[in-house]
Amino acid sequence: MSDVPTKLQPIFDQLDKNTDANIAKLATAISYKAVSADESLRQELFKKADYIQSLLENLNCTDIEQFALGDEKPGLPLPPVILARLGTSPTKKTVVVYAHMDVQPASIEDGWDTEPFELHHDKERGLLIGRGSTDDTGPLLAWLNMLEAHQQLGLELPVNLIFCFESMEESGSIGLEKFIQEQAQTSGYFYKYASQIDAVAISDNYWLGTTTPALTYGLRGCNYYQIKVDGPKADLHSGVFGGCIAEPMIDLVQLLSSLVSSQGEILIPGVMEMVAPVTEDEKEIYKSINYSVDEFNESSNSKTCLFDNKEEILMHRWRMPSLSVHGIENAFSGQGAKTVIPANSTGKFSIRTVPHIDSAKLDALVIEHVNKQFAKLNSPNKMVCELIHDGAYWYSDPRNASFTAASKATELVWGMKPDLTREGGSIPITLTFEQELKSSVVLIPCGRGNDGAHSINEKIDLENYVKGGKLLGSYLYYLAESDK
Amino acid sequence: MSDVPTKLQPIFDQLDKNTDANIAKLATAISYKAVSADESLRQELFKKADYIQSLLENLNCTDIEQFALGDEKPGLPLPPVILARLGTSPTKKTVVVYAHMDVQPASIEDGWDTEPFELHHDKERGLLIGRGSTDDTGPLLAWLNMLEAHQQLGLELPVNLIFCFESMEESGSIGLEKFIQEQAQTSGYFYKYASQIDAVAISDNYWLGTTTPALTYGLRGCNYYQIKVDGPKADLHSGVFGGCIAEPMIDLVQLLSSLVSSQGEILIPGVMEMVAPVTEDEKEIYKSINYSVDEFNESSNSKTCLFDNKEEILMHRWRMPSLSVHGIENAFSGQGAKTVIPANSTGKFSIRTVPHIDSAKLDALVIEHVNKQFAKLNSPNKMVCELIHDGAYWYSDPRNASFTAASKATELVWGMKPDLTREGGSIPITLTFEQELKSSVVLIPCGRGNDGAHSINEKIDLENYVKGGKLLGSYLYYLAESDK
Repeated sequence: MSDVPTKLQPIFDQLDKNTDANIAKLATAISYKAVSADESLRQELFKKADYIQSLLENLNCTDIEQFALGDEKPGLPLPPVILARLGTSPTKKTVVVYAHMDVQPASIEDGWDTEPFELHHDKERGLLIGRGSTDDTGPLLAWLNMLEAHQQLGLELPVNLIFCFESMEESGSIGLEKFIQEQAQTSGYFYKYASQIDAVAISDNYWLGTTTPALTYGLRGCNYYQIKVDGPKADLHSGVFGGCIAEPMIDLVQLLSSLVSSQGEILIPGVMEMVAPVTEDEKEIYKSINYSVDEFNESSNSKTCLFDNKEEILMHRWRMPSLSVHGIENAFSGQGAKTVIPANSTGKFSIRTVPHIDSAKLDALVIEHVNKQFAKLNSPNKMVCELIHDGAYWYSDPRNASFTAASKATELVWGMKPDLTREGGSIPITLTFEQELKSSVVLIPCGRGNDGAHSINEKIDLENYVKGGKLLGSYLYYLAESDK
Repeated sequence: MSDVPTKLQPIFDQLDKNTDANIAKLATAISYKAVSADESLRQELFKKADYIQSLLENLNCTDIEQFALGDEKPGLPLPPVILARLGTSPTKKTVVVYAHMDVQPASIEDGWDTEPFELHHDKERGLLIGRGSTDDTGPLLAWLNMLEAHQQLGLELPVNLIFCFESMEESGSIGLEKFIQEQAQTSGYFYKYASQIDAVAISDNYWLGTTTPALTYGLRGCNYYQIKVDGPKADLHSGVFGGCIAEPMIDLVQLLSSLVSSQGEILIPGVMEMVAPVTEDEKEIYKSINYSVDEFNESSNSKTCLFDNKEEILMHRWRMPSLSVHGIENAFSGQGAKTVIPANSTGKFSIRTVPHIDSAKLDALVIEHVNKQFAKLNSPNKMVCELIHDGAYWYSDPRNASFTAASKATELVWGMKPDLTREGGSIPITLTFEQELKSSVVLIPCGRGNDGAHSINEKIDLENYVKGGKLLGSYLYYLAESDK
């Protein structure tokens, strides 16, 4: 029988005692308008990084460094990445903790009930409301709250930690992949301070629903493409030219319509053949997960679901590829009734990728298909289909040591087994950590499925904020006692 | 043998004498930034109307009135329509002359070689360059120049004229149709001052090419539609929802792709069946017209023509319907790679109509077709296809008295028979005049096909400006001697 629960009890008690102070800390942290997408707020990201650094200093972290990643564009510096570490014992495991300090844009005009950058504690509902409360400032502080409790009790952590806090996650983590690669080299931070990284822990996603905690072992990748059709040199008048000229928009809708059916079936030959077959074992996973069509409809706020059962929804979100058509650039997109023939039009679509879709082979299949379809159109226009960016899927073993530790931690703190989930979206840096640090990654969400991470009235339940610190701490203890 | 040429010779001479003064008049007229699409320039339209009114007063026109058409929107009055008349003889025919005072937007930043609202006389090339020079301020002044020559010579016109000069033609002639209808009533201007309108003459289009004058006897109509597909209540993340939700953009591109082929063939059942068959006689018209594929390619500035011979180009521009896809509202239309599933998307398309497409039947066919296609998609989204606005085609008899007079005038002034042309575009007010004033309409263009009416460096050849006055005057003489 593990003595972890006994060791943790005083830490849990201390975290409970610190609740008001930790709410105050969250209030300070989210008061920075650290919106990475808004250039005019860039200085707020630097200020927030300084604030987080001051917390790390107070926790006696060492080798705290803010790294500059260069300029996003001339005159606009990228905000810093903070690396820091706590514990230098050669006999302990080393865990890298990733979180991000930046947030999504928010303004009360968007429909928030309270000022997004002023933490609102709704005591009746037990909610801490504000931009960043759950994505990802709250979980970042949950790590630090847990350390502070140790410090107050004079306790040491059972593992060494290396923190990696970035500031551009909501804007594509610009520069981070290259940075991690560099820091994994002989001269880099990770290599210098750790002979081996035993695990990477990320708390930057959410439970599937609102009642069952989750651990996440898979993410879909995303390959983003565009089809550009070039026709006449300038926009033309449809009265004068309509019927005589090959219209780029007409070609483009023909091409886009050949990609995917209204039922979501990808029509590009060869793509579905690459998808890993669904096993009987796997089907059991979906059956056991606490989820429903109604919950899906609630999250989409509509009844436009393509499936009538939770198993198919979960499979199509997590382990099947999907193709979305995002929009068209350079066609008429305003209100009203303009009679223009756009000179060129660019369709944008992306494919969410899953095991075992080979990214390069997918690109080749997509481009070959679109080229073939275009040839069929016999159009005098010019067409180019190309990849804009890609990010690989990630898939881990939910029975490895790190997941097992996280699962035990969840049972201890929440009193129930976590759902083993995957995410439809992408966190490309997950795979970078796994590959560069040669370490497994675990995603341990703190918040619930209805937190509204990128929406208005973003919240974290006070219970999740407090238990988040306990959960992440417990994970470290269980990981420490697992076999190396 | 007509004595018209003899009668006209002194007038032609006088117009030649007045050339410099008439260029100066054009310079003044185009100096007003009378852009009807630019609300901030609305006062310029009023000033230009006052200037044109002053010219009419100097020509001893009577019953000159500026009519207010109400507000375009609260606080933004519509610019005036000027009605005026010259000649009150009950024994003469009465001709309504329509022109417009407003112009397209223009700014040197668009790429003009000279300031668009300062007339530039390029003496080497014989061009008068400036916004409105050919569309439609130059032709409007050509009418007045011709009257002035009569005045200077102490001559009377062989017909009575009623002028109708509007100020919103480049912005959909807002309010004009209703105004014409009102003025054709018992209490209205046209009814009061003319027992019968014998002809309406409009000089607001262009030769087909650059060498042969033209008279225009047909215009295509335009029915503009939208297809709105409504899905979830708000935009969704394609990572989280892609593959599970019915995406409005996917439905929309399927629907748009069912409307028209890349070869320009309308795929909506029943539409082509309404089109008047091409007769052998008619084919001869296209053969005789001085035009080429190269000229078409030059005008589109590309090689994206669907046809390899002038006959098919002319038929598809003039007498065949066409369907253009203009764009999509509410999808992602910016630069970059946004992974959004748009909550709803609205596709815009229009059909250019020709004899004998019944507008209401067309609407029914379009909507029935789109509804059927959508039903096939089996999508849980909501879809509505609807007409946004329509404007009927116009088609006249190019052998009637008014066209015959205009044809004789062209031969006299230009020394060659005019091409009998149609236009692919629409001038909806043409049909309104014909129906409300129970009179035939003739389109007598002054300018050439390369004038760049809605483009940069708009020009009218000095030769066309001067001969324009002679042409329009001659038309009135030949019309006067034709049988009532």
